[in-house]
Amino acid sequence: MTTRVFILSDHTGITAGSIARALLAQFPHQSFELEEHPFLDSRDKVETIAREIERLGAAHQPPLVFSSFVNPEVRERLKAACGKRLFDIFEAFTPPLERLLGESASPVTGQLHGIGNAGSYTARIKALDYAMVHDDGSITKNYAKADVILIGVSRSGKTPTCLYLALHNGLQAANYPLVDEDLETTQLPAVLRDYRQKLVALTIDPKQLHRIRQQRRPGSRYASPEQCEWEVHQAENLFRKHHIPVIDTTAISIEEIAVHITAEIMGRTGAPPS
Amino acid sequence: MTTRVFILSDHTGITAGSIARALLAQFPHQSFELEEHPFLDSRDKVETIAREIERLGAAHQPPLVFSSFVNPEVRERLKAACGKRLFDIFEAFTPPLERLLGESASPVTGQLHGIGNAGSYTARIKALDYAMVHDDGSITKNYAKADVILIGVSRSGKTPTCLYLALHNGLQAANYPLVDEDLETTQLPAVLRDYRQKLVALTIDPKQLHRIRQQRRPGSRYASPEQCEWEVHQAENLFRKHHIPVIDTTAISIEEIAVHITAEIMGRTGAPPS
Repeated sequence: MTTRVFILSDHTGITAGSIARALLAQFPHQSFELEEHPFLDSRDKVETIAREIERLGAAHQPPLVFSSFVNPEVRERLKAACGKRLFDIFEAFTPPLERLLGESASPVTGQLHGIGNAGSYTARIKALDYAMVHDDGSITKNYAKADVILIGVSRSGKTPTCLYLALHNGLQAANYPLVDEDLETTQLPAVLRDYRQKLVALTIDPKQLHRIRQQRRPGSRYASPEQCEWEVHQAENLFRKHHIPVIDTTAISIEEIAVHITAEIMGRTGAPPS
Repeated sequence: MTTRVFILSDHTGITAGSIARALLAQFPHQSFELEEHPFLDSRDKVETIAREIERLGAAHQPPLVFSSFVNPEVRERLKAACGKRLFDIFEAFTPPLERLLGESASPVTGQLHGIGNAGSYTARIKALDYAMVHDDGSITKNYAKADVILIGVSRSGKTPTCLYLALHNGLQAANYPLVDEDLETTQLPAVLRDYRQKLVALTIDPKQLHRIRQQRRPGSRYASPEQCEWEVHQAENLFRKHHIPVIDTTAISIEEIAVHITAEIMGRTGAPPS
C-alpha cells in the first residue's frame, strides 16, 4: 500500500523535499507518493491544506507531512491537523537553537538556498554567462578569468558541472574537451599550459561513456567501445603525467561532482568559492 | 563574537547546509562562520573531525554542528563530541519515522538530491542539451518537443531558469527573447503561435532591468531606462492579451522562478515534471 507524502512550505519547499526523499529512501520496502505544495504563504492557503489533511485523516488515509514553515502559528495549525505525522524542520531545530544562542528566533522566509542570496545573484548570472561562452573549448582567450577549468573527453560531464558551479556557487567555470589530436600526445594542450593550477579533470568508465555516446550518435566511430576505451586511457595518462586532480564521474551526480570541485578549489585557495 | 558552524555530511552536505542557513538566518543579530566538510564517509574522517570539535570545545570555542549522517554509530560519535550543539537531520527524524512506519531504517546514503537520481541522469543531460540548443531563440524548430517555452525581454531571467529546470527537473525548457520587432505589435510571434499552451512569461521591474543591462552594455540604448520601460510595458500587454501566465522575476531567485514554473506545468498537465 502506498503512503501519500505531502511536502509543504511557505517558500520553495526544495529543502523539505530533499529531506523527505533522504529519509524515505531508508525504507525501501515501502512505497511513497510525494505531493509538493510550495509557497503556502497565507493563512488561507495553509488552512485549505490543513483541512485536506484532516479530511484524509478522517478517511483513515492520513498523509505523512514534511514541511518548512518559519511561522510558529502555522506549525501549530499543521500539528493540530497532522499530529505525530508532521515533520517540520523549523519545529525540530529552532527551539533548541534559541536556547543555545540565548535569543528568540525572528521568522525569516526564503533563506534556504544559496541561489536565493540576492547579494550574489549578479555574480551567479555573470558566472553563468561566462560558463556558456566558455563551454566546450569554444573560446579559450579568457581562461585567466576562470575560477576553474574542467578538462576531459567529450561527454565526461564537463558542461553540466560548469553550469551547476555557476548557478549554485557563482564560480566562473570554463571547460575544454580533449579531442583526438590532444590525446595523441601526453603534452598539455598549448592553450591550457599557463593555467595548470586551475585545471580539474573529469574521467568516466569507458563502457558508460560508450552507452552515453551511443544515445547521441548511434553506431558512430565516436561512440565505438574502442574509441571510448582509447580516449579515456590516453586522457588518464595525461592527467597522471601532469598531476591534475581527477574526479571519476561514472557513478556520481552532477552536484556530487560540483562539491568535489569546490572542495578542491578551497583546498587550493583556502577560501570558499561562494 | 562570531560562532563557528560546521556542516558535516557523509555525502554532499548540501541539504544540511541549506537547513543551517535557513535556521541561522532567523538570528540576524548574531554572526556565524560556516565551514563545510562533505563526504565524511569513513570512520577515520569522522574521527578526525570529532576530535577537532572536542579540541575546540576544550578551548571554550565549541562550534555549532549541522549534519546529515545515515549511520547511527557516526551520529553517536558526533553527539559525544558536540553534545547539545549537534543538529543532525537523520537523528531528529528517523526514529519517529521508524515508529510511524513500523519498520527500522536501512541506512542509505546519497538520496538527498533529485540530480542524484541516477535513473533520470540521462533525462537531465538530454534536457540540458535541449535547453542549450534552444537558448535565446537561436533554434525554434523543435518547440514541439519543449515541456515549456519561456518568453520575455532580454535579461528577464529566461536562460538561468531554463538551465535550472533542465538540471534539476529534467524539463526540456526552451526560451524565446522578445525583441523590438516582436514588441511593436501585440501579436504573438509567428514561431510561438502553435505552442500557446507551453508558454510561460517572465517579467521584471524596468528599473531592475536597467541596472542589469547597464552592467552588460553601459550607456547603450539597450540599457537605457526608456528602452527598458518600453519593452517591459509592451511585453506585459502582449502577455495579458494572450492570457499567458506571468512570473515577476524582480525580487525572486532562480529556483523560486523554477518552482513557480513547475507548479504551472503541474497545474496544466496534472503530472509532476520529474
